[in-house]
Amino acid sequence: MSSSETKPMLRVLRGETLARPPFWLMRQAGRYLPEYRELRAEAGGFLDLCFNPKLACEVTLQPLRRYGMDAAILFSDILIVPYGLGQKVAFQQGEGPVLEPIRATEELGRISLEGFHKRVEAVYETVERIQASLPPETALIGFAGSPWTVATYMVEGGGSKEYVAVKKWAYGDPEGFQKLIDLLVDSTIEYLDRQVLAGAEILQLFDSWAGVLPEPAFRRWVIAPTQRIVAALKQKHPTVPIIGFPKGAGALYRAYVGEAGIDAVSLDTAMPIDWAVEHLQSKMPVQGNLDPIFLVAGGAMLEAEIDRICDGFSGGPHIFNLGHGVTQTTPPENVDILARRLRA
Amino acid sequence: MSSSETKPMLRVLRGETLARPPFWLMRQAGRYLPEYRELRAEAGGFLDLCFNPKLACEVTLQPLRRYGMDAAILFSDILIVPYGLGQKVAFQQGEGPVLEPIRATEELGRISLEGFHKRVEAVYETVERIQASLPPETALIGFAGSPWTVATYMVEGGGSKEYVAVKKWAYGDPEGFQKLIDLLVDSTIEYLDRQVLAGAEILQLFDSWAGVLPEPAFRRWVIAPTQRIVAALKQKHPTVPIIGFPKGAGALYRAYVGEAGIDAVSLDTAMPIDWAVEHLQSKMPVQGNLDPIFLVAGGAMLEAEIDRICDGFSGGPHIFNLGHGVTQTTPPENVDILARRLRA
Repeated sequence: MSSSETKPMLRVLRGETLARPPFWLMRQAGRYLPEYRELRAEAGGFLDLCFNPKLACEVTLQPLRRYGMDAAILFSDILIVPYGLGQKVAFQQGEGPVLEPIRATEELGRISLEGFHKRVEAVYETVERIQASLPPETALIGFAGSPWTVATYMVEGGGSKEYVAVKKWAYGDPEGFQKLIDLLVDSTIEYLDRQVLAGAEILQLFDSWAGVLPEPAFRRWVIAPTQRIVAALKQKHPTVPIIGFPKGAGALYRAYVGEAGIDAVSLDTAMPIDWAVEHLQSKMPVQGNLDPIFLVAGGAMLEAEIDRICDGFSGGPHIFNLGHGVTQTTPPENVDILARRLRA
Repeated sequence: MSSSETKPMLRVLRGETLARPPFWLMRQAGRYLPEYRELRAEAGGFLDLCFNPKLACEVTLQPLRRYGMDAAILFSDILIVPYGLGQKVAFQQGEGPVLEPIRATEELGRISLEGFHKRVEAVYETVERIQASLPPETALIGFAGSPWTVATYMVEGGGSKEYVAVKKWAYGDPEGFQKLIDLLVDSTIEYLDRQVLAGAEILQLFDSWAGVLPEPAFRRWVIAPTQRIVAALKQKHPTVPIIGFPKGAGALYRAYVGEAGIDAVSLDTAMPIDWAVEHLQSKMPVQGNLDPIFLVAGGAMLEAEIDRICDGFSGGPHIFNLGHGVTQTTPPENVDILARRLRA
């Protein structure tokens, strides 16, 4: 058996049910780790860190040294794609991202695929470096944001509460908005193709704001673009599994799993296990879904919740993960409790 | 037939399917209306307005004069309950609410039910005034926030993105947090009882942040407190229908509808119609669920979306509403388009 066939992540993603689920944590590299904060202080801005292959590789590996996760995920950000397309993107300390918003078809001239790879090529070098440094049992996950979610930042100019600007465009001028989505589909295919060529063994598509759309818009802006990205990548790399994460999609998770073409699905915190087992895990491997705030609270409830999730999904292929990213105030020792419990 | 039996809202809430669904809109009174902004400028702070029966009644009636909704909803705020319990609550212009946070069992001594009715009695007078001024076909809805959602504000000290403080308490010290929830259950029962005595014909419980909890926490902090509130109010007022709104609950809507004891359920924007018809409308009347941003965008998509929702729910009892509150930048003429389409 080649080493890739023994990697627990890949075994589960091919449909095997393992007695102990492999695990990794969304945002497992980051500010809750003192060694990250130290390195971050040296690196300059957040984008400088993302585009520094040596440091980004180091940051990616930090949590693995402490906790031995079954997967590393490229340290990067979903806003690298708009940056690569030429949109102005800045990360201000404690403020979240700020982009120069694009709000109408006429403004699409400000961005293009030309020069994309050149602007983001440091990311591909980071992937190569991580792949060269990984323990043999550990899989490397590449990722991108899904077009809808990335579009929300590009149009709103940052995070949003009500998504007024992006929905106003999508609902009021769907043909114009489709052009932005098309560009994001094309660039995401290019970007993830290169990540695979550089050494990513698994891909994840993050659609963090999939849950704010009514069904027709969900089908058009979440499912359809995902289908196109997955189909194109499957043609180029038929054996690389793709995990989709339509956070907050509720009962629409079922349509997403049935139609998007993905190989596995990541579940948010609110997803009930019984329903997920019946409608989702019966179709494909599932990943999730511990509320990250249990890792802040610690104690008996953390262990009970880990057991509840492992038991609930034990009848089929399952990757243990969170339902949302690790939060900044997480005590690192609680992640250790999690890792030990999953290995016990 | 008495006038209450002919009110379309009450007919639907008793299970009738009407050819044209009655409608009202969450946050139908508010900043998108020029006459509201004018009156608001006179009234002083937001809490001053909520506690001024004459002005709060006037604000409640403003949208009815323009659009003839089938229901008026008391103009107020879900944070009136913490205010009534003695917590410091302030609304800063454009900033959202700010509360002096309560984060541990020891701090619960700062709040109590004693003096509650005295602190909020202006609200009951507002309800009386509205009831005295309503057109005979229009029903009056009283409301409160549900304990979980109100607790998030009380513990976080305002709005939140990750709910770290409130979940840390709820997950780390569930017995202590239960004391806060119990106090909210008791005060919400008292508060809604008085609203009914003052003239509210329907009650709605807003659980805006129900969707951020995993299933066991959802059952404990969303379903169970709602059950207790509904059961107590049903004993006092068996004929007053209660609508529950567990926003974002996804597939957990089904457990909520099956177990909370409510008479009707309000659906968020992400809820797919087919699923809701099969699992929710088959059990009780449903309310919803137009994305309010269609009212900002206007145009052909707005009309198509209204039709899709009306057609989708036409096989059972349905109240047309939004999946979330009217947003500030809504052009009032788009609400007029909605009202005309629903009456056509």
